Amino acid sequence: MPEPAEREHLRAVATELADRTREAIADLPVDADVVQVGSTARGTWVSGDRDIDLFVRFDANLDREQLEEYGLAVGHAVLPDGHEEYAEHPYVKGTHEGFDVDLVPCHDVETAGDLVSAVDRTPFHDAYLSARLDDDLAGDVVLAKAFLKGIGAYGSDLRTEGFSGYLTELLVLELGGFVPLVESARSWHPPVEFDSEGHAERTFDDPLVVVDPTDPTRNVAAVLSAANLARFQHYARELLAAPSEELFEPADPAPLDPAGVRDHLDRRETTPAAVVFDAPDVVDDQLWPQLRRSLDGIVRGLNGRGFDVLRARAMTDGSDRDPDGDSAKRAALYAELEVAERPAVTRHEGPPVAVRKHAASFYESYADDVDPETYGPFIDGDRYVVEREREFTTVREYLESEAAGDVALGAQVEREFAERDVLVGDAVATLAPAFGVPLREFYEPHP
Amino acid sequence: MPEPAEREHLRAVATELADRTREAIADLPVDADVVQVGSTARGTWVSGDRDIDLFVRFDANLDREQLEEYGLAVGHAVLPDGHEEYAEHPYVKGTHEGFDVDLVPCHDVETAGDLVSAVDRTPFHDAYLSARLDDDLAGDVVLAKAFLKGIGAYGSDLRTEGFSGYLTELLVLELGGFVPLVESARSWHPPVEFDSEGHAERTFDDPLVVVDPTDPTRNVAAVLSAANLARFQHYARELLAAPSEELFEPADPAPLDPAGVRDHLDRRETTPAAVVFDAPDVVDDQLWPQLRRSLDGIVRGLNGRGFDVLRARAMTDGSDRDPDGDSAKRAALYAELEVAERPAVTRHEGPPVAVRKHAASFYESYADDVDPETYGPFIDGDRYVVEREREFTTVREYLESEAAGDVALGAQVEREFAERDVLVGDAVATLAPAFGVPLREFYEPHP
Repeated sequence: MPEPAEREHLRAVATELADRTREAIADLPVDADVVQVGSTARGTWVSGDRDIDLFVRFDANLDREQLEEYGLAVGHAVLPDGHEEYAEHPYVKGTHEGFDVDLVPCHDVETAGDLVSAVDRTPFHDAYLSARLDDDLAGDVVLAKAFLKGIGAYGSDLRTEGFSGYLTELLVLELGGFVPLVESARSWHPPVEFDSEGHAERTFDDPLVVVDPTDPTRNVAAVLSAANLARFQHYARELLAAPSEELFEPADPAPLDPAGVRDHLDRRETTPAAVVFDAPDVVDDQLWPQLRRSLDGIVRGLNGRGFDVLRARAMTDGSDRDPDGDSAKRAALYAELEVAERPAVTRHEGPPVAVRKHAASFYESYADDVDPETYGPFIDGDRYVVEREREFTTVREYLESEAAGDVALGAQVEREFAERDVLVGDAVATLAPAFGVPLREFYEPHP
Repeated sequence: MPEPAEREHLRAVATELADRTREAIADLPVDADVVQVGSTARGTWVSGDRDIDLFVRFDANLDREQLEEYGLAVGHAVLPDGHEEYAEHPYVKGTHEGFDVDLVPCHDVETAGDLVSAVDRTPFHDAYLSARLDDDLAGDVVLAKAFLKGIGAYGSDLRTEGFSGYLTELLVLELGGFVPLVESARSWHPPVEFDSEGHAERTFDDPLVVVDPTDPTRNVAAVLSAANLARFQHYARELLAAPSEELFEPADPAPLDPAGVRDHLDRRETTPAAVVFDAPDVVDDQLWPQLRRSLDGIVRGLNGRGFDVLRARAMTDGSDRDPDGDSAKRAALYAELEVAERPAVTRHEGPPVAVRKHAASFYESYADDVDPETYGPFIDGDRYVVEREREFTTVREYLESEAAGDVALGAQVEREFAERDVLVGDAVATLAPAFGVPLREFYEPHP
């Protein structure tokens, strides 16, 4: 829990920033107001969080171009050292007295249904929660967030795919506190749905559905992965069985070193393979979906060619644990294989002999085959079968091939993927220590 | 086609034997008659066949014990150098003037429906065909049998699983000749059913159904494998596309030698494995079903443990090509593997985390596991997963294990299997030349 002095300091800084924002608005040819939103506004922030979010609300009819222009003008006036970032609109991000400050322009719409952009939604969330979270519940929200951080399931960014702050607050509100929430969660049978306003206007295909009380068409938990929901249920049971402060402390794994990697490989007798490339210079929310799709594609490609994957993971180096650090420099698609080689021949089943036209054309195409690698056609059961030359007999051949290059979905990853390095076997140990943290998590997996 | 002199000689010998049989019957306290049955009786035998089958028909009410006693007495009287064999009853088999002679006792029943044993059926088949096959059709039967022999699909023994003589004769009769038969066969879409008497009293689950005209409950083609039916269709098309005497000449593959085996292994890059054991001293019709079941069990066991089988075959040594030779001395279950090793760990999926009771017991059983080989439990998707020690990491470990010993179905094979040798890799080349013929067929497969 944040200390009183920490809360007081934050409140003073936020008030000062809001005042300066109003002064900057006064210089504009249009009017606007300022709302502080987010957990620091509601006293539901977790100690150590340093975010102050100020929304500048312009008239709902202001056109987008002007909103962006005025919004940036205000932002630069309040945060002269700030820089521009881009969510739905461009906005200014900077630091002030040690806090991270976002100054975000939005439209002042009547209801969430009138949204001009997703950013405009935030003040509605804020108003909904502020009206309902008393001090007790706010304290429980802080606990819930700390717990989710501790177990690694907090954050709705597309890398984590965890619980957003808003989702956490809604769940604490819905269940009536942190303990009732974990008591409920331990017995959930997904799909689980909450709709506090009873106003859902569609169905959702997610394991956890929390209908946004300010928008009947939106599932606040849409980003949450099945794994993070399961993780929450697992640790809810652990917490209730044996309460422990440790569960509220995020794991901070030490990077695995090359010798540590080799030890695991010796014990496991797997063949590791890694495709390593420059991480494209995009934000994590763009990078990670591309990495996951690429990993899925590579795993499918490996399995489909008989290189059976035991377990795989997308990794980035260095900055993984530091949300404010530089974005990753290198990315790796890491797979442990049960099978890294296949024979020169592969079985290829033809049609049943009885299917005369197809059977005849299959038979003729291979009977005339002068390739000495082809065995058959022979008959197995009711079909023609040949054993013909296999396209890729080693995992390296496949990973270096154009076929593997085609699976990297996402334009930015695809470009970098063309210049990939392929490591097979003990050579993957050279990924440590740069990739030491995700390697530690890979080789010492916990729920 | 048999030459006229050959036919005449056979007829004379058969008549002489029938006379001597009648003399032997006269010494019995009961009456009986003699019928010559089978292809040599009907002129539908293939040149080189040397079988004379004489059935001794006793009264339908004679009890089994007496039938066997009198039947053997007649047999030994006619064939003093003969020996006893066993089909449904014991009977005497011997040679006379270069012919193989079977002297088989049976009951003289009114219709095939009254059968006391399967042997009693033969005279009905004989009567049915003799009444319908004229000289032209008999000639076509001889052609059809020669063709089926040439393509390796003739013989209803449980090793070949091909076309029986009776089946071949019925098909020629049904379609009206050899050429009409192959013209029909090239377009068959199994299941194909013929019921010349329109009297089938049940349905059959076989790819080819030829209802026995003398027994409405029996499919004459029940033994025929899907592969031999497909083979017949394949070669029917080949014959009609380009008639050739070669198709009537049985393949007589030279045994592959050890160097030949190694050449194929080098080209294919597979890992071969063979389980070799003494062939139990039983007739082929008992041995081969047991070998096939054992092979299926071993292949299932290998695949189930990740040792992916590319192709497999049961083999016996030496006597394979000589139906009158000694029974096989050694048997081998031969498999070519794509994967002969797996890592020390194997993935084991637990229940979904949400299924609280099962999930908790799974988690606890592994969380307390002190086995350093176990990784996890961790969460993958909505489930717990562990990577635990694999039972068999090499194909040899599996094939030498008790688990592999349990798959050998059939009492006689199971006993010999306990004393099996396991060959892995180039060591299988030592199976040649003893197993050289089946190895040649394995590595030079034809339809």
